[in-house]
Amino acid sequence: MTTANQQFASDNYSGVCPEAWEAMARANQGHDRAYGDDQWTARAADHFRALFDTDCEVFFAFNGTAANSLALSSLCQSYHSVICADIAHVETDECGAPEFFSNGSKLLLGRSEQGKLTPAAIREIALKRKDIHYPKPRVVSLTQATEVGTVYQPEELRAVSDTCKELGLHLHMDGARFANACAHLGLAPAELSWKTGVDVLCFGGTKNGMAVGEAILFFNRDLAIDFEYRCKQAGQLASKMRFLSAPWVGLLENGAWLKYADHANRCARLLAELIGELPGVELMFPVQANGVFVSLPPAALEALKHRGWLFYTFIGVGGARFMCSWDTSEARVRQLADDIRTVVIGAI
Amino acid sequence: MTTANQQFASDNYSGVCPEAWEAMARANQGHDRAYGDDQWTARAADHFRALFDTDCEVFFAFNGTAANSLALSSLCQSYHSVICADIAHVETDECGAPEFFSNGSKLLLGRSEQGKLTPAAIREIALKRKDIHYPKPRVVSLTQATEVGTVYQPEELRAVSDTCKELGLHLHMDGARFANACAHLGLAPAELSWKTGVDVLCFGGTKNGMAVGEAILFFNRDLAIDFEYRCKQAGQLASKMRFLSAPWVGLLENGAWLKYADHANRCARLLAELIGELPGVELMFPVQANGVFVSLPPAALEALKHRGWLFYTFIGVGGARFMCSWDTSEARVRQLADDIRTVVIGAI
Amino acid sequence: MTTANQQFASDNYSGVCPEAWEAMARANQGHDRAYGDDQWTARAADHFRALFDTDCEVFFAFNGTAANSLALSSLCQSYHSVICADIAHVETDECGAPEFFSNGSKLLLGRSEQGKLTPAAIREIALKRKDIHYPKPRVVSLTQATEVGTVYQPEELRAVSDTCKELGLHLHMDGARFANACAHLGLAPAELSWKTGVDVLCFGGTKNGMAVGEAILFFNRDLAIDFEYRCKQAGQLASKMRFLSAPWVGLLENGAWLKYADHANRCARLLAELIGELPGVELMFPVQANGVFVSLPPAALEALKHRGWLFYTFIGVGGARFMCSWDTSEARVRQLADDIRTVVIGAI
Amino acid sequence: MTTANQQFASDNYSGVCPEAWEAMARANQGHDRAYGDDQWTARAADHFRALFDTDCEVFFAFNGTAANSLALSSLCQSYHSVICADIAHVETDECGAPEFFSNGSKLLLGRSEQGKLTPAAIREIALKRKDIHYPKPRVVSLTQATEVGTVYQPEELRAVSDTCKELGLHLHMDGARFANACAHLGLAPAELSWKTGVDVLCFGGTKNGMAVGEAILFFNRDLAIDFEYRCKQAGQLASKMRFLSAPWVGLLENGAWLKYADHANRCARLLAELIGELPGVELMFPVQANGVFVSLPPAALEALKHRGWLFYTFIGVGGARFMCSWDTSEARVRQLADDIRTVVIGAI
Repeated sequence: MTTANQQFASDNYSGVCPEAWEAMARANQGHDRAYGDDQWTARAADHFRALFDTDCEVFFAFNGTAANSLALSSLCQSYHSVICADIAHVETDECGAPEFFSNGSKLLLGRSEQGKLTPAAIREIALKRKDIHYPKPRVVSLTQATEVGTVYQPEELRAVSDTCKELGLHLHMDGARFANACAHLGLAPAELSWKTGVDVLCFGGTKNGMAVGEAILFFNRDLAIDFEYRCKQAGQLASKMRFLSAPWVGLLENGAWLKYADHANRCARLLAELIGELPGVELMFPVQANGVFVSLPPAALEALKHRGWLFYTFIGVGGARFMCSWDTSEARVRQLADDIRTVVIGAI
Repeated sequence: MTTANQQFASDNYSGVCPEAWEAMARANQGHDRAYGDDQWTARAADHFRALFDTDCEVFFAFNGTAANSLALSSLCQSYHSVICADIAHVETDECGAPEFFSNGSKLLLGRSEQGKLTPAAIREIALKRKDIHYPKPRVVSLTQATEVGTVYQPEELRAVSDTCKELGLHLHMDGARFANACAHLGLAPAELSWKTGVDVLCFGGTKNGMAVGEAILFFNRDLAIDFEYRCKQAGQLASKMRFLSAPWVGLLENGAWLKYADHANRCARLLAELIGELPGVELMFPVQANGVFVSLPPAALEALKHRGWLFYTFIGVGGARFMCSWDTSEARVRQLADDIRTVVIGAI
Repeated sequence: MTTANQQFASDNYSGVCPEAWEAMARANQGHDRAYGDDQWTARAADHFRALFDTDCEVFFAFNGTAANSLALSSLCQSYHSVICADIAHVETDECGAPEFFSNGSKLLLGRSEQGKLTPAAIREIALKRKDIHYPKPRVVSLTQATEVGTVYQPEELRAVSDTCKELGLHLHMDGARFANACAHLGLAPAELSWKTGVDVLCFGGTKNGMAVGEAILFFNRDLAIDFEYRCKQAGQLASKMRFLSAPWVGLLENGAWLKYADHANRCARLLAELIGELPGVELMFPVQANGVFVSLPPAALEALKHRGWLFYTFIGVGGARFMCSWDTSEARVRQLADDIRTVVIGAI
Repeated sequence: MTTANQQFASDNYSGVCPEAWEAMARANQGHDRAYGDDQWTARAADHFRALFDTDCEVFFAFNGTAANSLALSSLCQSYHSVICADIAHVETDECGAPEFFSNGSKLLLGRSEQGKLTPAAIREIALKRKDIHYPKPRVVSLTQATEVGTVYQPEELRAVSDTCKELGLHLHMDGARFANACAHLGLAPAELSWKTGVDVLCFGGTKNGMAVGEAILFFNRDLAIDFEYRCKQAGQLASKMRFLSAPWVGLLENGAWLKYADHANRCARLLAELIGELPGVELMFPVQANGVFVSLPPAALEALKHRGWLFYTFIGVGGARFMCSWDTSEARVRQLADDIRTVVIGAI
């Protein structure tokens, strides 16, 4: 059942934002062509090209697992490997989907610093083995914003991209929270994608306020050849595609995508400000996107759960993750902060 | 753009029915658990168990390509084969998805009679080769209703199922239009599935009035072990699952699934009645579900297209397919019939 | 147990020819580098380049199943398809290996004429479907000599190759009996491969007199990029590679490959001459390579088996296949012919 | 070219032992049935059943990459995972073959102690994640002897096996050097395999003195169902199978397999004794099987290479691996030891 206390468990717990909903309702008028030959799909793709200010190839998939796995499998063969951060979602939470879609590509893990992969880590992995007994590195995958709520700066992206070019690697970006990264940096999407060397971006719609759906944007159009067949074969071509694409029109046509990302980020910052200075509380990572990762005394965590708050604690001992979303209310943030204050004081 | 003349092109061209839509709207209240741990998913599964009067395992996938491919890959290994009709959708229109999901299982094609696979055809294929140089038959896949609008009678299903048992084959049913089959026969879903030996049924939601989504029902529960991992790895686990399951609640809770299937079937029958006796017109298959396959003079087909009607002609020379859906209007059926009458007379 | 009567069952029933054996024995002196970095592997590759008079890329695989499947999977992606003859070995006798190695590529079957695929058949298949619901044709696979003992003429190959170029298809040749084709035509290997547009050839060693092993020759070198990784990942890189490559040196350095193929062909022709005119006997295909396919009265087939002859009868009712190999003795051919004469007369 | 100084680079650098060679020569008499229906294959399988004193299922594959990958893929589905040591050969040197054959199964790495996986490490990995976003552990893979020349004691195997049973995991053993483990422990093969709970063993033939080939033994026969199809589809069924199985007869019929493994082990021990006490020299792991891993001053390593010795140094800085094989000569061991003594003294 829906309870207010679930609001910080995950940005996947939120529903559909009004703009996306309303666009679906508009799309639900009469009949339209199937499999993406409809007007909504064309419009959504055009919105992306306008937003990114480039003539990229645009595809729509049902979820992030598929979007990222399809993109990666188009960038490498089964005997290649993908370099990603040790905490990358593709590694830790996709149940082997990248390996399945690519028919065996191995993920090679680089130590992350504040959730980010560095050129040094990439270089070390890429150069460690050059023999055929080990899968050949072919792709680097970054997550923007990262799984721990940090954001790559444009110069960080450029440094990674330069390393990729030097080493002959494609650059993929898992942008499940790409909107949050844009909002944090106040930069145009182009600045964080193709202008800094990203070949393919998976732009997250679900966490941004849609019911279902992600967009896959190929800035390197050569890599998109026959990609529509790949989507179809992998069970990612919607017959009534308009219901997957119309919400994008809703999100993109008037800037809702950015408004909501900004809102979620602000809620996270507010929470961080309200609790960051409390004794026994330590922010584990800079709060840049919509997540707050915080170290709390175990007793405080227990007390907080006892008060009904739902949140994940998978980031090591003592760590709690509070996620804000497009519909998080400031009042609830303050309530949560109040409760944290109370339990922390009680735990010391 | 949506035009009334598209109404008979495909049952995928229709939108979302009111019951499904309204359930999504109800589900879109506040936050709820992700990945299927929500109340709507539990309710939808329960509705299926009640409808089928058995304690089956229920899973939700985004589309039919994935539902069928996931189901088939859970019934065989890569070196096994799947026996299906030569016109089976898994063979002709999934871009190799079954082969992809199963990592190589071959589809062995049996000649269909009025779209149906017979025990004799199954037996012939299954017994033709017994050596290891050919993939071992392990599954039979039926489509109910078939791709040409015919419906297996319960005794036909039982005969197929008996053959499967005798030969050690699992039985899968592609039920993209299962509702239409139930409506046609006036039989309870159980009578056309587990009671006649079906192991796994993919129940189609999209063509039945949903925006997206199919249900996979395992009557043989042993075959469902770890199936949730399979769905996840293959990119078929929705994060905001409630938007995939709630529409099912809408369709199932008050019988809308059957009402709409029945409506679509009636529209198809009406069309068949209105044009079946015209000179130069020949119904290619018995009209049992929601499709009318009709042979027309080439000039008539051209004239019909010229009048703006959209329809598929992939069934050989002269054949046209007219599909009715949950929202087909009787008035439009009569308009189409009138136009067919006109062009046919003009063509003779 | 080895019996003389098995001599015509399959060219796989024969052992290792002296030249291949002796080269293995030479290679078995002391230690040498593993995984193909040895002198024998380099020499074998050089022999191939000299034989084909071109700087092709050369790889070695354990058997034909793997060689063909690896080659095909390097020519297409999982959502592509391979056009081949309905009787192609990759379709009928590889247990779905091409589908497995390629992760789902579908084989599309063209009707064969005397075992051969025609430009018309290729064109028909390639142009039949252009939508994303069907895997996109990307490769044509020919077998030279064919599975029924016929041989493509250079002009036939050129016609196929022209069709491939026109349609954007790669051209693969399954050359399990390529040597027999060369021997039959009296043409240099180059004339039947890269000079007539073949991109990749799998050159059969096993049937040509080796214990194990096939060579994969990429005339289109771009297609060979990273192919060594593909071989390794797929379990086709021998550690003691020299035992896979040395026999090739034995076969190629003094022309044994051609001598034996020619011998096998001559034995087949002899058999055909001896029995071709008998009443009740009908040669099913022109005898060009090392196989004789002959239609016999059922009673004659039975009587022949009763006399201890081992042969396959999979080519329809009444058909028997007699295969000659590098070590078939003329005396045995005459014995077989005598017995056939006897049983045929008895059967009439 | 073969040089004496290569003798310690790898046990893959050695050739074919006389017993294996002679059996191949015997097998190379006349014609015999293909694809394993021959007498040699039957005899080899029987020898294995006698040697292991149990009615196991026996299959033959071309190499270790394939044997292990096929075995693992028969023990789990694509969404399952395999727990192995961080230095396991399947992880570090198979170019993603297990992932390829299984269509995506992930390898989960446990910290090894002296090359061995412990019950504690297995338990930690297996219990860390229980959600569907991570592949479900299904198999444990051990290497016996390990990649660093150590050997699991029977009680260690039993402890691992007990942990597997408790956690519902299958137990696979990579036995590329299984013979060396038996020789070291002086125990019957059964004691190190099925009697201590191993489900499937890949018994290495190549390093034991064969040209090519490994055996896959299923003690848990249920897991072997249809495994012959899996081998065929994956390109691991030899047509002239007798050349893959006959050498096994040669190795097994008179105990050559054990004699040679014991010889290689003794050579390794001799080397360890001769250099173990030298200043600046440190044995990195107990010398139990046929490998000596030794830490040397960098200058000494360089000097040794300068003297023409070929060896691997991939085990971290300063480490060198010297492998002994079935044909290593004691004289060469003493020469190597002398040279090591010389360069070490020069390096201090």
